Amino acid sequence: MDETRIAEAVGKAVRSLLPRSITPQEAHKLAKAVRCRARSMGVKAVIAVSDAHANPILCEAEEGAYIASWDIALNKSYTVVALKMSTAALAELAAPGGELYGIQFTNGGKIVVFGGGEPLESEGRIIGGLGVSGGSAQQDTALAAYGKQIFKEICSDAE
Amino acid sequence: MDETRIAEAVGKAVRSLLPRSITPQEAHKLAKAVRCRARSMGVKAVIAVSDAHANPILCEAEEGAYIASWDIALNKSYTVVALKMSTAALAELAAPGGELYGIQFTNGGKIVVFGGGEPLESEGRIIGGLGVSGGSAQQDTALAAYGKQIFKEICSDAE
Amino acid sequence: MDETRIAEAVGKAVRSLLPRSITPQEAHKLAKAVRCRARSMGVKAVIAVSDAHANPILCEAEEGAYIASWDIALNKSYTVVALKMSTAALAELAAPGGELYGIQFTNGGKIVVFGGGEPLESEGRIIGGLGVSGGSAQQDTALAAYGKQIFKEICSDAE
Amino acid sequence: MDETRIAEAVGKAVRSLLPRSITPQEAHKLAKAVRCRARSMGVKAVIAVSDAHANPILCEAEEGAYIASWDIALNKSYTVVALKMSTAALAELAAPGGELYGIQFTNGGKIVVFGGGEPLESEGRIIGGLGVSGGSAQQDTALAAYGKQIFKEICSDAE
Repeated sequence: MDETRIAEAVGKAVRSLLPRSITPQEAHKLAKAVRCRARSMGVKAVIAVSDAHANPILCEAEEGAYIASWDIALNKSYTVVALKMSTAALAELAAPGGELYGIQFTNGGKIVVFGGGEPLESEGRIIGGLGVSGGSAQQDTALAAYGKQIFKEICSDAE
Repeated sequence: MDETRIAEAVGKAVRSLLPRSITPQEAHKLAKAVRCRARSMGVKAVIAVSDAHANPILCEAEEGAYIASWDIALNKSYTVVALKMSTAALAELAAPGGELYGIQFTNGGKIVVFGGGEPLESEGRIIGGLGVSGGSAQQDTALAAYGKQIFKEICSDAE
Repeated sequence: MDETRIAEAVGKAVRSLLPRSITPQEAHKLAKAVRCRARSMGVKAVIAVSDAHANPILCEAEEGAYIASWDIALNKSYTVVALKMSTAALAELAAPGGELYGIQFTNGGKIVVFGGGEPLESEGRIIGGLGVSGGSAQQDTALAAYGKQIFKEICSDAE
Repeated sequence: MDETRIAEAVGKAVRSLLPRSITPQEAHKLAKAVRCRARSMGVKAVIAVSDAHANPILCEAEEGAYIASWDIALNKSYTVVALKMSTAALAELAAPGGELYGIQFTNGGKIVVFGGGEPLESEGRIIGGLGVSGGSAQQDTALAAYGKQIFKEICSDAE
């Protein structure tokens, strides 16, 4: 077994352990799946995906979506990675009386405290964030939860 | 089928296809009407109008109006188009406990969550936004509602 | 010829005259074409598309693209619609000594004054904006010019 | 092929796969070294370190440092990762007449275009950013260059 083949075998084993980030390909697949679901629900959604470091990698608006939804979806995808929780979970903590009340004012307007954002996980680690905006809070929350679920299948397919 | 009926049918077909935006002429008529009403109420108002895409097309301050009202009126006219609802309706959704609580922090300070902004409609579509600031919340809300109502007449006159 | 058929015929004729905006479908096709060209040049690009009203509808980052390129590409796609010219053309006007020197400070940091942004035209009207960032100024400028050109074919195909 | 050589080959393979980021420990060692040098030069410096994704991980102000230097150092450490070059190199590109003139206005005030920021490299990749502010432009530039150099030794020591 020469060095080249050892390097190859090791590389394969190591890659599965690496703290990786969502790829643009995965982000596109995810956005497409969430877009289909949104349409079937009659929601004109903006869908945003950030990487494992809270930097944006994709944002798409449906024709006729709320103009305000662009920033909201992007900020949701930021929030879930930056705080490692869904925006629905954060909603409770950040409500008046909640233990994180006020966090919505501390980060330059980038923290969203209502549903529609979910961290994306692979191998037990957060590797990206999904933000959906355009429907009711309930619809956005359901769409983000759907995206989080479907993302598991997208990751499995890639293996 | 005579010419008149054809012209009517054509006009009807065309109007339904036109995703039109409020014109500067309509915006001026609207601002003038709201200005008169504000004066009769003793309110020194700033009146702002945005187009169907949330871009501003007119903003006028009464002498002696609050300096802060310029930004508030402009942002109200943005909010109502960007979120497709009045700022009074948004006030309830964005209040602590409401399902959109927190939306006031997500869009760079451009979302206003108290009364005084109304979307302007024509043929069932939002074709612009009106923002009024300068009086009490109640007065601004009443002035925006008046503007929304009077705008229907301005549109009818144009036909 | 009954009313329905007249409405259909007229609708078709009118649609070709309407001041339309780029659709999400066209934006996706355009982004895909520019992405292919960028890869062939070895450029890791962020590609942004705005609609006819300078509101963003799509932004995508290549893996490994400059983090700063997200905002730059988005702002280029805004600038070209908001000012109705390419960012390369604006670069000359906005340079020290140029007649628009200073415009880069007046719009909340959204005006980009170097190459990589091109307005997208159809039927002689600007119906959207393209922003490319990630390569050298020369590469970004070439990619945006390519996108402007290829967009003509995308519009023709749609007819 | 003995165990030692296998371990070496594996280590080499793994390191090349790992897209690693500067650790807090390395950041502290780096800041300490730059702090010592700054003191020996009589500079009251703010020293900031960002990770491989332009997110800040450390920022320290010397007693009596310019208050404004906090933001400047942080933004320098952001700029060098977000644009993959030193702020001194960017200074030339962003100067009037340079091909990126205007980039200092496009990213929400986070792009610094004068010396004092250097990307931090390991194994040929940028794994973090250093920003120094507090002295003259020349002093800050020299301190950042010193930090970039000393960082190579810090990385070697860690092996």
